[in-house]
Amino acid sequence: MIHPSMPALEILGFVAAVLTTLCWLPQALRTLRTKDTKSLSLVTQSSLTLGVGLWLIYGILLGNLPLILANAVTFVLVVLILAMKLRYG
Amino acid sequence: MIHPSMPALEILGFVAAVLTTLCWLPQALRTLRTKDTKSLSLVTQSSLTLGVGLWLIYGILLGNLPLILANAVTFVLVVLILAMKLRYG
Repeated sequence: MIHPSMPALEILGFVAAVLTTLCWLPQALRTLRTKDTKSLSLVTQSSLTLGVGLWLIYGILLGNLPLILANAVTFVLVVLILAMKLRYG
Repeated sequence: MIHPSMPALEILGFVAAVLTTLCWLPQALRTLRTKDTKSLSLVTQSSLTLGVGLWLIYGILLGNLPLILANAVTFVLVVLILAMKLRYG
């Protein structure tokens, strides 16, 4: 959480992490609603999901809580988008 | 680069970074070829681009070369996808 004692650099990293994590929510909601995955690249979606999964394992092995939290949330969202891509083609 | 002296944890982080960076290449190529961006969420693509841009600035301010390289490459690819989304709708 942003707190008055946080230095500017930490806030910048926090905002970057929130953006690259929660940005997947509108895509997941849009795809849930439209069931349209035609323009999504399956290779992109698969390798993104695998990559985020590896970041999550990396965070767990390092015991780095921000890395774990950000990648756990991202992983749930990108897995959902990948599952819809596999389902709707 | 992967090198025999790299510990397993560093290799894991390296593979994760390569995947979450280069995964954007097939999406960019697919969209260049098909000009089809209908299923892509504009909010996702915009906030991803902004987030990656902030990660890049964060890496530059920290002087962290892997963070700079990964996010510079990612930024070029996601800006290209965002530009096509804005162009083709």
